[in-house]
Amino acid sequence: MDYRARQRRLAEGVEAQKLKSLLITHLPNIRYVCGFTGSAGVAAIRGRSGRRQLALFTDGRYTEQARDQTKRARARVITTKGSALIAAAEWVGDGARKSDAVGFESEHMSVAAHQALAKAAPKIRLKPTSLIVERLRMVKDAGEIDQIRSAVLLASQVFEAAIGDIKPGIAENSIAAEIEYLCRRMGAESMSFDTLVAAGPRSALPHGVASSHPVPSRGFVILDFGVILGGYCSDMTRTVHVGRPSTSARAMYQAVLEAQLAGIAAVQPGIKPAEVDYATRNVLQKSGLGRYFTHSTGHGVGLEIHELPGLRKVPKRQDVQQRKLKRRIISAEVLEPGMVITIEPGVYIPGKGGVRIEDMVLVTEAGCEVLTPTGKDLMVI
Amino acid sequence: MDYRARQRRLAEGVEAQKLKSLLITHLPNIRYVCGFTGSAGVAAIRGRSGRRQLALFTDGRYTEQARDQTKRARARVITTKGSALIAAAEWVGDGARKSDAVGFESEHMSVAAHQALAKAAPKIRLKPTSLIVERLRMVKDAGEIDQIRSAVLLASQVFEAAIGDIKPGIAENSIAAEIEYLCRRMGAESMSFDTLVAAGPRSALPHGVASSHPVPSRGFVILDFGVILGGYCSDMTRTVHVGRPSTSARAMYQAVLEAQLAGIAAVQPGIKPAEVDYATRNVLQKSGLGRYFTHSTGHGVGLEIHELPGLRKVPKRQDVQQRKLKRRIISAEVLEPGMVITIEPGVYIPGKGGVRIEDMVLVTEAGCEVLTPTGKDLMVI
Repeated sequence: MDYRARQRRLAEGVEAQKLKSLLITHLPNIRYVCGFTGSAGVAAIRGRSGRRQLALFTDGRYTEQARDQTKRARARVITTKGSALIAAAEWVGDGARKSDAVGFESEHMSVAAHQALAKAAPKIRLKPTSLIVERLRMVKDAGEIDQIRSAVLLASQVFEAAIGDIKPGIAENSIAAEIEYLCRRMGAESMSFDTLVAAGPRSALPHGVASSHPVPSRGFVILDFGVILGGYCSDMTRTVHVGRPSTSARAMYQAVLEAQLAGIAAVQPGIKPAEVDYATRNVLQKSGLGRYFTHSTGHGVGLEIHELPGLRKVPKRQDVQQRKLKRRIISAEVLEPGMVITIEPGVYIPGKGGVRIEDMVLVTEAGCEVLTPTGKDLMVI
Repeated sequence: MDYRARQRRLAEGVEAQKLKSLLITHLPNIRYVCGFTGSAGVAAIRGRSGRRQLALFTDGRYTEQARDQTKRARARVITTKGSALIAAAEWVGDGARKSDAVGFESEHMSVAAHQALAKAAPKIRLKPTSLIVERLRMVKDAGEIDQIRSAVLLASQVFEAAIGDIKPGIAENSIAAEIEYLCRRMGAESMSFDTLVAAGPRSALPHGVASSHPVPSRGFVILDFGVILGGYCSDMTRTVHVGRPSTSARAMYQAVLEAQLAGIAAVQPGIKPAEVDYATRNVLQKSGLGRYFTHSTGHGVGLEIHELPGLRKVPKRQDVQQRKLKRRIISAEVLEPGMVITIEPGVYIPGKGGVRIEDMVLVTEAGCEVLTPTGKDLMVI
């Protein structure tokens, strides 16, 4: 992980906002800029890009761990007895001119924390910023891509091992338990999210968390899971069919697969994320299934399971207000080499069932590379 | 779950803040007041306690689920195409007098969301509130206590089954994988938190997430885990010893056990949480181990793994500023019947090892009831 390059890009991003300093309160962002993985801390950067300084503020529990983990990032570790946030704000304010505002991550500071900080450090002029570090995190460096590859491969191996467990009568959450057990046994730090297993009519739920419902004798089973390895997430979905699929079930699967392949074919540097969404959505609309594709085509993956860029429709005017509040996934300008995204169209027909197929894809200079090695032909169990 | 009683108490709490309405944005709080478990939504209450109305604002994905889950709470479900938060703010503002402020949860609204809301609904006067619903959640009703009992018993059964796996050479994360697998197989929805398994010198880390380190031939192994069942969390810690414990290891274990029992003995209605903390800390201080007890004695448990009340030392003056920022766990005035808390003193000697023993305890009229049935004599493996 090239922390110096990250910090250089960070300093440029901070400068572009006409700021001399930034308080970083979102833990994945802190990990990104200095390597610290503890559950409590604040990072701060100050100074122009040539003479920038990065410091990590944390409490006594983490002194040793913080020094160890941030060595390569050459961060200064400052252990505080009081609030790390206030200490960080004082550090960036120290020696700054009165006119210099201190940036903070507005999506990652509660109104309560902001009030307390403003009260404790009344001389500091706080300025909200939006997604500075998240935008840097979109393009992965070589070390990150290696980690993501490992996480993707581990999950794919588990999928191969776990499909043997899918049988009529087995509860969804037994299958999920088996998947998670295998992931942990193979070295996963944890799961990227609660494993989704949705069988039969429940496969029509786009986010069917595994329940105690048994797999029926005939129908689709959606499996959606991912692991965390070295801090980086993977994410994959496959849909299998238990019993002989009907002609319409086969057609539905085929349509989703074609949509997914069209999405992958659309991925290349310079293209807008919304164009990839259009590519998958267009296939499903032509198949008459467009209205059952109720979510977006994909999202970035990295230290978090949902990152920038979001691969969604161009927002309609009435949606714009909503998007201002839901900033976690917004569209980037264009795809760039080094971005890692999911391509995961799905179709959900209430009362009948659903299909989703999801790969992780690396944007390359030439187009893209599908990272997920698992086959996508309809598997009948 | 008696939603009508919860809403009555909520309305009283809102009125006590001189507010006519409250926007509820924290998902566990939303679940508490109306039963909705989806991942996106905003609840709102308006009107005086006699004529209060509760509504849940969510998007199309959750319409059916929301109606189904909130039936008993008699919440009005309003599906929004745009921002649920803005729709909720407009609903509570509708018909309100200009002078009426709209309360919001200041710990659970980011500065960015607050800015967007203020911009979208400029006529509404927003007023920060702090932990109104969290305070209601401290005292559990009968349905909640039943759920918590079930979660505690499930985890205890898994502990009994899992100790057979602890042997020298086994990796910590294999033990964690086994525990999590058994929990899932026995019906847990998920784990309350990433399972902690810390063996040998790593047991000196108060939050030793299970690593690939093997269990050494001699030393303590701390196991700390919990399950979620029906939405409610459990939390337990036991420390076992692999190989023959030295005299000092035995003494250390005994001191922690005595501290834990002293904490339990101190729990009764009307007592301050800090007094329970004092009871455990005092035992360890008398044993000369006080300086190795680096965390608080316990915390409330319910829909979240860390809830009010916090069982901690009375803050020193220099810590007060910090506490304003770390409001998630603050001290309640006094313990009340129906509160469910952990009692979990620990001792961590760097380079040597650590011991922590944790039970869940229900505050009763007569004193308290220890919910965790697992034995606490030192188990030597």
